[in-house]
Amino acid sequence: MTEPLFVIPLWADLTAVGLGGIQGALFASGFRGQRRLDLLGVALIGILIGMGGGLIRDLLLNVPLTTLQSNWYLITATGAALLGMLLANVFQRLNRVIVGLDAVVIGMFGAFGTSKALALGLPAVPAVFVGVCAAVGGSVLRDVIMGLPVAVMHVGSLYAVAAGAGCVTLVILDAVGVDLVIGAIVCIAVAAVIRILAVVFDLSLPEQRLLHRRKVAGETTAIPVVRPPAD
Amino acid sequence: MTEPLFVIPLWADLTAVGLGGIQGALFASGFRGQRRLDLLGVALIGILIGMGGGLIRDLLLNVPLTTLQSNWYLITATGAALLGMLLANVFQRLNRVIVGLDAVVIGMFGAFGTSKALALGLPAVPAVFVGVCAAVGGSVLRDVIMGLPVAVMHVGSLYAVAAGAGCVTLVILDAVGVDLVIGAIVCIAVAAVIRILAVVFDLSLPEQRLLHRRKVAGETTAIPVVRPPAD
Amino acid sequence: MTEPLFVIPLWADLTAVGLGGIQGALFASGFRGQRRLDLLGVALIGILIGMGGGLIRDLLLNVPLTTLQSNWYLITATGAALLGMLLANVFQRLNRVIVGLDAVVIGMFGAFGTSKALALGLPAVPAVFVGVCAAVGGSVLRDVIMGLPVAVMHVGSLYAVAAGAGCVTLVILDAVGVDLVIGAIVCIAVAAVIRILAVVFDLSLPEQRLLHRRKVAGETTAIPVVRPPAD
Repeated sequence: MTEPLFVIPLWADLTAVGLGGIQGALFASGFRGQRRLDLLGVALIGILIGMGGGLIRDLLLNVPLTTLQSNWYLITATGAALLGMLLANVFQRLNRVIVGLDAVVIGMFGAFGTSKALALGLPAVPAVFVGVCAAVGGSVLRDVIMGLPVAVMHVGSLYAVAAGAGCVTLVILDAVGVDLVIGAIVCIAVAAVIRILAVVFDLSLPEQRLLHRRKVAGETTAIPVVRPPAD
Repeated sequence: MTEPLFVIPLWADLTAVGLGGIQGALFASGFRGQRRLDLLGVALIGILIGMGGGLIRDLLLNVPLTTLQSNWYLITATGAALLGMLLANVFQRLNRVIVGLDAVVIGMFGAFGTSKALALGLPAVPAVFVGVCAAVGGSVLRDVIMGLPVAVMHVGSLYAVAAGAGCVTLVILDAVGVDLVIGAIVCIAVAAVIRILAVVFDLSLPEQRLLHRRKVAGETTAIPVVRPPAD
Repeated sequence: MTEPLFVIPLWADLTAVGLGGIQGALFASGFRGQRRLDLLGVALIGILIGMGGGLIRDLLLNVPLTTLQSNWYLITATGAALLGMLLANVFQRLNRVIVGLDAVVIGMFGAFGTSKALALGLPAVPAVFVGVCAAVGGSVLRDVIMGLPVAVMHVGSLYAVAAGAGCVTLVILDAVGVDLVIGAIVCIAVAAVIRILAVVFDLSLPEQRLLHRRKVAGETTAIPVVRPPAD
């Protein structure tokens, strides 16, 4: 049932999982909602972002979930999430770190999803679809479970377009006969660069700013309503 | 792993996907929430509604996802979603079109889900369950991702009952020995008629009306709080 | 495709499904949100909690969904949900019943998930992961679909820690050579006792109390804002 044709090297896969775990924990630590997440909640978000892309990819491909075939995935995701929590105070305002990690993680999950789909014989369009779902799926799960507006839907052109462009590049390179490994590296670069450029030139982490504004607005209505009339 | 016993004809499956895509995009275009969806968001909702039913069906049946075995599903869903966006201004107030499309789509996904489940040898009750999940699953995903109250839970008797009645009819016809194709057609008719009658006689698209009222209420509290005391 | 090595006895599986169905319906009946669930909604939540754990387990394990291979699972879940609705008025304020059922259900789904994963040859860490996901997955789905803050994220140490402790115990006992059945029973006991102790000594059903407070707070801001200035 496991195909021997194509194997994402374990270290590469674990790197994506680890970076995702750090990024997820950083994001969750920075979250100020109506109800603060406890430490376990922050760790769970990290694990979710680290594992989510691979889980969604393999569910869509109907193959045994790679991330559950070895102890290392969960250990890496958990360790990375804990590291992210420890580093949160250091990196909290270094939005660049979160954005940068995010961009690379999107590219990696997109590249692994698309190349695994191609290796399993899927046509080009669904292969791109699987890549994009793997790339953005973790963050969709995160937003749904944290009760946030789903970023991909609202300001997500950045995410989905970056992932999509990377995956399309990979499919084209593969069709032209370029090696999958080289294609995957180009895919990661394309996705990460688009995402970073979008953030640099357009709007700096738009979904988080918007969220904050919304939260603040929400709290303003929620609390000081009882303010007595001025005189 | 793919069973040769039962194949939903491609044109029928693509029709359901296309109608779902149009309906999803029309729904999403009409959506006025706290934060407007961008164009990509509208397209994604259309694709989700078009593809969702088939994806959920095949995940539950643990078979390779049909909608990812060919380029046509995603192309159809995307094209239909774009068409729905273009037509949105024309059809916006023609609620009937949305309701009608919706009713037929529910019936088709229900029929395909139940008949595929029966063909794979599932017992009657789970076959109905798969059909109902395929029929309403896309709209549940849509509501969760758009941050709306899940329609099926609150006013969904209409949806779930219509889909359930259609799927039960199909199972009974199949047990009696009627051909699956005829059973599927009857199933679609039953589900669509119940859903349309429910809308016509009971309440006209209740979940959308309620949503609007809720949004309006939400905005009223969110804004004019700072009004100075009258005197 | 179905492994003959390990079979959870049908009566045990159905007991978990039935208890889950009752518990889900009791929870949903007690729910007072912005929009009341209709009866079908309450039944659906019951079915979801009853079926959810098994569905998530088998999806993660990429095996045919056991709960769809026989009519009995859905019949049991539906019957239990209806029973839960009927008993709701009796048990409404007997929070203990809900908490107790909840604790046992968590333990059972955790035990079945972990032992099935071990029987399928998964390593220890993913086996615990599958067990925890099976144990808390149903309640995550419930919260997402009901539009509630996901309990596991916010106050969930109780849930996830209890399930995790039980599943880890099971894995250790299995590694030491203890029979899976005995391990599963110990796992259920450990999870249920931790969950119940947590509720008894720490906070009595914290997520529900908090929810209520939040709802009330929400309603207070939503309504009396227009109060005229005192003078």
